[in-house]
Amino acid sequence: MEFPNAEIIAVGSELLTSARLDTDSLFLTEKLNELGVEVIRKSVVGDDRRRLADTITMALQSAELVILTGGLGPTEDDVTRDATALALDRTLEFNQQISDWLHDRFSRMGRKMAEINLRQAYLVDGAVALPNPNGTAPGEWIEHSGATLLLLPGPPRELKPMFERECIPRLRAILPKQVIRTLFYRVAGMGESDLDALIAPVYTRYTNPVTTVLAAAGDIQVHFRARSETAEEAEALLAEIAPQIEPLLGDRIYSKGGDPLQVVVGKLLGACSETVAVAESCTGGMLGERITTVPGSSSYFAGGFLTYTEAMKISMLGVDPDLLARETAVSEAVAKAMAAGAKERTGATYALSTTGVAGPGGGTEDTPVGTVFIGLATPTEVRARRFRFPGDRERVRGFATQTALDMLRRTLKRHEPPTSWMVK
Amino acid sequence: MEFPNAEIIAVGSELLTSARLDTDSLFLTEKLNELGVEVIRKSVVGDDRRRLADTITMALQSAELVILTGGLGPTEDDVTRDATALALDRTLEFNQQISDWLHDRFSRMGRKMAEINLRQAYLVDGAVALPNPNGTAPGEWIEHSGATLLLLPGPPRELKPMFERECIPRLRAILPKQVIRTLFYRVAGMGESDLDALIAPVYTRYTNPVTTVLAAAGDIQVHFRARSETAEEAEALLAEIAPQIEPLLGDRIYSKGGDPLQVVVGKLLGACSETVAVAESCTGGMLGERITTVPGSSSYFAGGFLTYTEAMKISMLGVDPDLLARETAVSEAVAKAMAAGAKERTGATYALSTTGVAGPGGGTEDTPVGTVFIGLATPTEVRARRFRFPGDRERVRGFATQTALDMLRRTLKRHEPPTSWMVK
Repeated sequence: MEFPNAEIIAVGSELLTSARLDTDSLFLTEKLNELGVEVIRKSVVGDDRRRLADTITMALQSAELVILTGGLGPTEDDVTRDATALALDRTLEFNQQISDWLHDRFSRMGRKMAEINLRQAYLVDGAVALPNPNGTAPGEWIEHSGATLLLLPGPPRELKPMFERECIPRLRAILPKQVIRTLFYRVAGMGESDLDALIAPVYTRYTNPVTTVLAAAGDIQVHFRARSETAEEAEALLAEIAPQIEPLLGDRIYSKGGDPLQVVVGKLLGACSETVAVAESCTGGMLGERITTVPGSSSYFAGGFLTYTEAMKISMLGVDPDLLARETAVSEAVAKAMAAGAKERTGATYALSTTGVAGPGGGTEDTPVGTVFIGLATPTEVRARRFRFPGDRERVRGFATQTALDMLRRTLKRHEPPTSWMVK
Repeated sequence: MEFPNAEIIAVGSELLTSARLDTDSLFLTEKLNELGVEVIRKSVVGDDRRRLADTITMALQSAELVILTGGLGPTEDDVTRDATALALDRTLEFNQQISDWLHDRFSRMGRKMAEINLRQAYLVDGAVALPNPNGTAPGEWIEHSGATLLLLPGPPRELKPMFERECIPRLRAILPKQVIRTLFYRVAGMGESDLDALIAPVYTRYTNPVTTVLAAAGDIQVHFRARSETAEEAEALLAEIAPQIEPLLGDRIYSKGGDPLQVVVGKLLGACSETVAVAESCTGGMLGERITTVPGSSSYFAGGFLTYTEAMKISMLGVDPDLLARETAVSEAVAKAMAAGAKERTGATYALSTTGVAGPGGGTEDTPVGTVFIGLATPTEVRARRFRFPGDRERVRGFATQTALDMLRRTLKRHEPPTSWMVK
């Protein structure tokens, strides 16, 4: 195979509604680009066998690699297997091994397999089955007239491991030698446009490496991708850009390997056998939820209090009722008292607190929607800072969670805490 | 024009990177569906004239309405006009009126127009220009062999007003009178394939309404969309299917209007001025986070305890240390003690608890990964049930959260609590 072009086809009528987007293609594009493969067209097709077959036929006219996602489920609506067979003029063949594996999977879960699930034991004739440890739909690797078709399940938790474990090694084996090296920063405490204004003067001078900036609430990923014929050359390209970028972002870079912030904080706590507790008002559990997404977090997560009302702040955290009455629940003093209470009641080394107005209601002139106080109790002090975050309720809560974790990271790393949303 | 189908083509190489998605199509889909037009395929194509022309040609073979977004700017990269002319075998014609308007627009902004902007004064021969008050790219309305092509600018602040002011009235004039009615169920407590096996025998007998099934962990959405010439007919189509579907799903249907489960539970609690508290172990905050995504949840969310370790279950919830030692943390008795402790310490009407093995580590033969006990304390009793959920850590936590909320819903509605994942 020469340097191939890829086309991605997402299958599912639900992806043609106004409520849903195909996001699998973002993951696939990232991984394909890392292999040196460019995506030249993406399509979304509903659960229509004939139309999907036509789309596959057209894709095979312009791309050497055609990847289909979704439509591999057990129902009548799942037409990817049928449509591929139709487009390639092949049959579907029953596979006893997959059938046995399906029966086994259901019985291990203590459930009886519905007859309909046997549809997933049929493969396009000549296909190699790709195992799916996270679901009932096997993937398929199909070669056809010099091109390769991949049928992959739609759910990201099934698609991603299958692509990484089964497809990437097989693709590497057939792709021309090309070395790709990536530099990857994760950045907290600033907005996307501020970051771009800071680093664009550097990266716009280079077409290789290629720069990509991805932003979520208070969390930005910056990728630099260098491609070359040798590892030395690709690394030299990155070695030129890194010392220009890193001083600009400074201690806002929280991870270079790709670890999310809760993993970075967990590692820092684990390294010194310290623990953290949380006292959440406006985030309502989001902070604890993020800390505990990490397997093994029980070794440093001391526990949490979801104190959504004033009464709970008093009874669960021991916040002084007079202080609440005088300062209101959304105040620096109450954020500090919440953090101090959580630290004292759990015996944790650190405690984080959040109290704010996530919206849409509840804002006032002095405390508009988006105002959040974040408190941090450490072995030596208790402090709190006021922030003003942009966006809707979920975005404000996301910003508050990310900023609280970043405040702890900075304390653990002994950094100063400047962030774009801090209110003086 | 008969009841037409639409195809949307987004143009721009930036939409083929791993960082960007075409979101214009969501807006267009919503507006088209309101007009009774179905979107049958969406594509994203880079700035490649030949490939875009091929995509347009293919779209015209299956859709009567083809909408292109983006690629109407003044640069070499903007290929939509050229590619459309190529696909339709027409020429581009200079339009003096647009040229004058462009010159005027620039001089009003006090800027000299670059020569390159004159490219935007060319229209596909025979096209009607659609004015753009928010940018320099006029849209185009083109009729071709019984089909209609629309060329629209990519930036949403230009696209949306142009579509609403210029396209919708023109489309209404040529579309047949058509009414759309939707029936929408949300279902908890069963898997997608079980649900499908149950209702497919009904819905596969109908092509109108169109059925769509969307599934997440323990949460399924079922849509039926009927189209007809009159409201009465569309409603009659749904009135035929509803009494066949509802008895099959029974009290697993938790919402008919689209409300997510946390909203349904919130309304039930609010209606009787009752409250709920949570005691979370394996979900680590996810349950509180979901309850508090709802604005106004402070009126019924009494608070929560994130007791990730045994020590915290003892100190924060008053779980008996001997019970923990005897039964282990992942047990029915401890789930009940956690729920009872949370109810007692918050004074809430109800308390939910979760304790389980979310994985990937921590599983044993007796208590494999995916095992979760969910406890519920009510004014009259404390009970807990054992579940076994499939999937990875995030999915197990998602199932546990959804199932806990559904257990509360069933209690508030006085339903029996059967779910697919319950272990006898």
